Amino acid sequence: MCTNYSRELHKMGMAARTAARKLALTKATHKNRCLEAMAEQLLEQQDKIQDANQEDLENGKEKGLSNAMLDRLTLSKERIEKMAKGLRTVTGLEDPCGRVESTWIRPNGLKINKVRVPIGVVGIIYEARPNVTADAAGLCLKAGNATFLRGGSEAINSNQAIVNALHKGLEDNDMPKEIVQLLPWTDREAVNQMLTMDEYIDLIIPRGGEELIRKVVQNSSIPVIKHYKGVCHILVDKDADGEKALKIIENAKCQRPGVCNAAETVLIHRSIAEEFAPKMAEMLQKNNVSLRGDDEFCKLVKTAEKADEKDWSTEYLDLTLSVKIVEHIDDAIEHIGKYGSAHSDAIVTENRNTATYFTECVDSATVYVNASTRFTDGGEFGMGAEIGVSTDRIHARGPMGLEELTSYKYIIMGNGQVRT
Amino acid sequence: MCTNYSRELHKMGMAARTAARKLALTKATHKNRCLEAMAEQLLEQQDKIQDANQEDLENGKEKGLSNAMLDRLTLSKERIEKMAKGLRTVTGLEDPCGRVESTWIRPNGLKINKVRVPIGVVGIIYEARPNVTADAAGLCLKAGNATFLRGGSEAINSNQAIVNALHKGLEDNDMPKEIVQLLPWTDREAVNQMLTMDEYIDLIIPRGGEELIRKVVQNSSIPVIKHYKGVCHILVDKDADGEKALKIIENAKCQRPGVCNAAETVLIHRSIAEEFAPKMAEMLQKNNVSLRGDDEFCKLVKTAEKADEKDWSTEYLDLTLSVKIVEHIDDAIEHIGKYGSAHSDAIVTENRNTATYFTECVDSATVYVNASTRFTDGGEFGMGAEIGVSTDRIHARGPMGLEELTSYKYIIMGNGQVRT
Repeated sequence: MCTNYSRELHKMGMAARTAARKLALTKATHKNRCLEAMAEQLLEQQDKIQDANQEDLENGKEKGLSNAMLDRLTLSKERIEKMAKGLRTVTGLEDPCGRVESTWIRPNGLKINKVRVPIGVVGIIYEARPNVTADAAGLCLKAGNATFLRGGSEAINSNQAIVNALHKGLEDNDMPKEIVQLLPWTDREAVNQMLTMDEYIDLIIPRGGEELIRKVVQNSSIPVIKHYKGVCHILVDKDADGEKALKIIENAKCQRPGVCNAAETVLIHRSIAEEFAPKMAEMLQKNNVSLRGDDEFCKLVKTAEKADEKDWSTEYLDLTLSVKIVEHIDDAIEHIGKYGSAHSDAIVTENRNTATYFTECVDSATVYVNASTRFTDGGEFGMGAEIGVSTDRIHARGPMGLEELTSYKYIIMGNGQVRT
Repeated sequence: MCTNYSRELHKMGMAARTAARKLALTKATHKNRCLEAMAEQLLEQQDKIQDANQEDLENGKEKGLSNAMLDRLTLSKERIEKMAKGLRTVTGLEDPCGRVESTWIRPNGLKINKVRVPIGVVGIIYEARPNVTADAAGLCLKAGNATFLRGGSEAINSNQAIVNALHKGLEDNDMPKEIVQLLPWTDREAVNQMLTMDEYIDLIIPRGGEELIRKVVQNSSIPVIKHYKGVCHILVDKDADGEKALKIIENAKCQRPGVCNAAETVLIHRSIAEEFAPKMAEMLQKNNVSLRGDDEFCKLVKTAEKADEKDWSTEYLDLTLSVKIVEHIDDAIEHIGKYGSAHSDAIVTENRNTATYFTECVDSATVYVNASTRFTDGGEFGMGAEIGVSTDRIHARGPMGLEELTSYKYIIMGNGQVRT
């Protein structure tokens, strides 16, 4: 039943490539006009978008989606306004394209310029949050990239309505609507075919749960940038300021436990554990956090459950925290390397040498000293916005903003030079 | 028959990861000592290496390898010395690791440092050139990466002997020999299993023909950086200096036709074609270059054969050149976009505006004005050496030197900051 996909996808791919070429040569001012018009259209077409969303919500209820899922799916007036505001924020971000990163002259007189350019066509695969449609398309557009969107089946009507609004904004500014394309099919076969379109799509960014992302990586011949999960650690060193540690742990665990940069494990240096562990337990219990500890911690904190091997690599995304007592900083570093996800890890210490040792040895995208892991975020890093967080080791690590959505090329100016 | 691979590969992967962690924390001076010792060992173990190579050559002759293949496989005294010299050259290159790329302070006082770090474990898949073994391992080591090498089956004995020498150099400097590992199996199943080891290998760089590279991309769940081929163009603009154009075309086509940055197609602006085409044909005939032209070129140059559609996307790697007359610079840009490989493309023009327009519109890794495409090379770009050339659009484009073999991480220094 899916045999027609490939022809349609091929057409969409070619259209994306053509649109991306035009977009790559478009100046920032014109891209900003498009973003502005797209934002306006979202507001203008609010009723249509909400009607479509209503349809998705009804289908969702029939299918028995959880309340949390239905909430994520819902496009209230405020959420539509937030999408529009998001696009307007992007107009204020500096366009990295065209920036000369470095220039050098070779002994033979060749002048080499390394210049930022768009990546080309970016595929975004996401789940039931329809706001990603506008957010991702807007950021990619500002960086000069066309998008090939594949949202969750639950949100197909909402996504289509949002894309219609974005298209109107583009066309009103004489830009091809194929700068933003939404995959109209929501079955797995369609996404698998999309993942083999390496001729047309340059990069895939999956956003969603670990299972979704693993499937994408498994089936893609296109480069994928992603993080599977965030198992983030906080090490309370022997030279920690206890008050700072408590504040940081509270924030990293409790402020928003369902996100990837929330802490999942606290490691406590043995020499301070007896004093620190009960204080921490008390603070966390006030915050309704359940504790799972190793033997030693459970001895110090009677209310803690015993952690098993699986706990150390679990992203709870909830008010649960695993805790381990460590003998030496190297044990902590080893634990983080073995069980962590190379996302965000922190040390609390007043000892500068220990801090340096930790930041050198912990091989994660973001390594913190005396600060909450919750800062791993494009906005908090000053990037203005982000398309996601990467724990990969090529192209981009940590929060990915506009700059990370670009590539570069070399422009070499000569005067008849040939190679000898 | 291959069921034991996975366990062995798993072990090799874990060993690579451990070795890479140690290497990542090793200072440049110590890495240089390793490289120095590895070079020495190559020279010291020259006889063993040549014996092993002899075995490969005999097997190759039995298997009926072409003379060109046998030549590539041969490790003469000079070639072994060149490998050793290559390693010594790498000691002189600046180590990018640990370099703070940028630092900024957020309004809340958080200090964010973006610091260069190694990628981790790099897999290199290559064909019958055993010198790649030492060259790739050496460059990766200097950038702090362990290597997981898979050379062609024809060279297995030579590669093993080279790796033995490199191991001795490493162990003499108290470094784990697993910094350089060679896949001992040479069948396809082993390489396919290697390509799914995304837990242990961070990046795959395939070096070889297009067919090999396509297979790697198809089967890899690990990110791959590559170029399939180099179909490089030279556009002779209406405002070209004819003498410069002839010199550049001669160099780009004839100086070393078998490499990826050699020119395969010349595009000539119609308004100068009548004068320029015969001169170019004369020069190229002196160089024994066969010409395949479009109708218009064939009318101007009677000795040219008629090119067919396939010619425009063919990487001849030989003394053959396709030639097309274009009406407008946009036709040339479109032709390059459609048939090119986004590797290296050049314009010859004295018109500055035309040059700028060309370099903006041509979407290739390296775009030249008035210079030969043959300069796309790590050495020529001043990188000292290169591990390959990328036509991909993420992580690295163009020649990849030490810097492109690294990643980065963020180190964030706080004073108790939490997110509000």
